[in-house]
Amino acid sequence: MVYVGIDLGGTNIRCGVTDPEGHLLAKTSRLTQAGRNWREIVRDIAEGSSEALENCGLDWSSVQALGIGVPGIVDNAAGMVVACTNLSWYDLPLREELGRYVNAPVLMENDANAAALAEYYAGVSAGCESSVLITLGTGVGSGIVMHGRPWPGAFGQAGELGHTILVPDGIPCTCGRNGCMERYCSGSALAFAGKQACWADPDTALWKKAEGDLERLSAKLVVDAAREGDPHALRVFGRFAHYLAIAIDNVISMMNPQMIVIGGGVSRAGSFLLEAVRERIPRTEMEVPRPMPRIELARLGSEAGLIGAALLGRQLEE
Amino acid sequence: MVYVGIDLGGTNIRCGVTDPEGHLLAKTSRLTQAGRNWREIVRDIAEGSSEALENCGLDWSSVQALGIGVPGIVDNAAGMVVACTNLSWYDLPLREELGRYVNAPVLMENDANAAALAEYYAGVSAGCESSVLITLGTGVGSGIVMHGRPWPGAFGQAGELGHTILVPDGIPCTCGRNGCMERYCSGSALAFAGKQACWADPDTALWKKAEGDLERLSAKLVVDAAREGDPHALRVFGRFAHYLAIAIDNVISMMNPQMIVIGGGVSRAGSFLLEAVRERIPRTEMEVPRPMPRIELARLGSEAGLIGAALLGRQLEE
Repeated sequence: MVYVGIDLGGTNIRCGVTDPEGHLLAKTSRLTQAGRNWREIVRDIAEGSSEALENCGLDWSSVQALGIGVPGIVDNAAGMVVACTNLSWYDLPLREELGRYVNAPVLMENDANAAALAEYYAGVSAGCESSVLITLGTGVGSGIVMHGRPWPGAFGQAGELGHTILVPDGIPCTCGRNGCMERYCSGSALAFAGKQACWADPDTALWKKAEGDLERLSAKLVVDAAREGDPHALRVFGRFAHYLAIAIDNVISMMNPQMIVIGGGVSRAGSFLLEAVRERIPRTEMEVPRPMPRIELARLGSEAGLIGAALLGRQLEE
Repeated sequence: MVYVGIDLGGTNIRCGVTDPEGHLLAKTSRLTQAGRNWREIVRDIAEGSSEALENCGLDWSSVQALGIGVPGIVDNAAGMVVACTNLSWYDLPLREELGRYVNAPVLMENDANAAALAEYYAGVSAGCESSVLITLGTGVGSGIVMHGRPWPGAFGQAGELGHTILVPDGIPCTCGRNGCMERYCSGSALAFAGKQACWADPDTALWKKAEGDLERLSAKLVVDAAREGDPHALRVFGRFAHYLAIAIDNVISMMNPQMIVIGGGVSRAGSFLLEAVRERIPRTEMEVPRPMPRIELARLGSEAGLIGAALLGRQLEE
């Protein structure tokens, strides 16, 4: 038996077929074209899935389940997408609509939770009964596995680590709060802090990286400049890692998962990021040395959402 | 069948017998006398339990299970107390030792998690598949119920909300970190802030409440003065509620439980506290109104730990 997974994004509909271990056997991609009638998007999901199956010489009779990772709030029990702002989808009966095309159980999950599940079944957190995946990209998302299954939250809204308040009365956030973690620990926050450092010193390597055009200064360029030893970039990166370490320490204090997994675009900084964060985890003075969750880099990269969606079907067997 | 629960504290060993709904049928209390040989304390646990059973005309043949709430880190799977600093217990085989006296399954859990479980089975969060109980006392503890069962953490250390960092580089904490939530949101933090306000103004009602002796100024007296409208006490209490609301909002953003339950000594401030916190939960600008977890006061008070320990046995049936 195989599993079909869908990574539904604002730009692409990616469909994949995996074996029970999460190895991708085939995948297809279609443009989402957000804004068109949602039923057309659902039809493309079904067609993309069928095509992926054909690509490995299979049909729906071999499919254990189809899982969808949605960048928003879902109610899997009801088979509904509650809210997906990227697609302007609100209260849509996704399972019912897919049932018109697909003869397999349809499961749905928030995309960050799906990615966390992928790392749990087939990635770096394999075998960890609990883990929190933190994705550092334009924003900050997180996916939670507890008791060996995704924790979507009572209202499908768990894992909003990016909108926990890290600095009370801090930088105003798009969400309406002030001081959200995302304003300090996302890729865009890192790029923004790099831009501010440029204004402080016309000789910083950051200017050169950006070829004199601040709009070009990405998180990656800030990391590159820090890696090469530019003092301004190092200061900016150090502050970023300091805040990220506090946020991770807070997740550990509250949820005490077996592993913290760092993913998303910024995680491509690799061990440079990992070591910076690990060494900044606040020191504590416990009477007994406490076993600490491991902090690791995600392994499945941009395929995590697809693989995790497919492996939602694994839960039907457990 | 009945359930036996033990609330093991640094001062008292409290033993109780409950029915499956968590109604207390009998209870006994003995002094812990921390510092003596741990096997003597375990014998007293067994004797106190037998006495409580006798008080309701029962013996061990009627007992479904015995549960113990421990103020520290336990490993229920292994039957071990990993670390309980109050009692200086480290790596002790509690289940094995109790097995010398008790012919029933022995279960153990962190005391805050046991209290959260009590509210889940028999208190304010009854029927909520997920909840977080926050106890505001000398320190701040919290207990987590997820997927309808306690979440002790991968290393038995979940729920350390009091030691999440609320203010980066804030007030130094006993744990070694700076800016822990407990330094802003505990009963002792509230009392301490009240003392500081006394120094600012010799005419504040806080001085009168304390009868001129700052050592007497408790969290309760600060709440009383605020309730009576003293502007200094109101400012202190407002700041306390502001920080507590941020901490609660963060738990909601990350874990999205069905309910947040506020317990511990400070929760005796009742609706005065509850309303102050509810109105300070940070406003967000979501495109869709999000369903919010309810924030409520604990109902079982000082019996929560005892009842929750007893109802650990309920989990054997599920």
